[in-house]
Amino acid sequence: MLKRIHHVGVVVPNLEEGLRFWRDCLGLEFKKSATIADQGVRAALLDAGGSEIELLEPLSPDNGVGKFLARRGGGLHHVCFESDAVSADIEEARIKGIQLIDQKPRKGLAGMICFLHPKATRGVLVEYAEPIEE
Amino acid sequence: MLKRIHHVGVVVPNLEEGLRFWRDCLGLEFKKSATIADQGVRAALLDAGGSEIELLEPLSPDNGVGKFLARRGGGLHHVCFESDAVSADIEEARIKGIQLIDQKPRKGLAGMICFLHPKATRGVLVEYAEPIEE
Repeated sequence: MLKRIHHVGVVVPNLEEGLRFWRDCLGLEFKKSATIADQGVRAALLDAGGSEIELLEPLSPDNGVGKFLARRGGGLHHVCFESDAVSADIEEARIKGIQLIDQKPRKGLAGMICFLHPKATRGVLVEYAEPIEE
Repeated sequence: MLKRIHHVGVVVPNLEEGLRFWRDCLGLEFKKSATIADQGVRAALLDAGGSEIELLEPLSPDNGVGKFLARRGGGLHHVCFESDAVSADIEEARIKGIQLIDQKPRKGLAGMICFLHPKATRGVLVEYAEPIEE
């Protein structure tokens, strides 16, 4: 079951410049940043009252985030819902005929994650995430 | 001060079709829908654990939401942060040099609202909202 908006993903050309707006101008609290090599991004998480803003800077113009940046110049990229059981939720999505990008959960910045296909959702990239205790 | 993500706005070609995905497939709880004539949209709100998904169907191809739909076919449109004092927060944004769409708060679906200009934010339309007791 989907519990809440876990985070909203925003593509930025440059993480430091993104932080100047989201952290310094809007005043959202910086939580952490990381390079996620296998997704080809540098990411930063900012707190927004329990949900997060996830800034994403592509490491390459060839991956999904890099292509999004080239096409749109950055902007709102995806919305992630916290799930209490991501395996069960994607199985339910599959039964309901929703096209998936990930056929099974994989490890991401927000825990065990999977992405639904934006074709299934009229252009919105939706992520499910089940946080993992660290 | 910005307290949390109040809602994420999603443009859809048709509200009923949008509800079939967000309510019936994802299982988000429908809260209310309304026609907001002066903004030229039909809107529906769905609960997502305290935050909301706001579906927006344009009533005209000529307004901002209508043009977004024509350009992109729908998708993530804006992110709204709850403010405890929207007048003070937009004054602070102005002092920080952030370009605004609304120079002062106006009444919207989420309370007293204002939009920052996406030019200020690298392509993300950001809304502030101070809920009003009804």
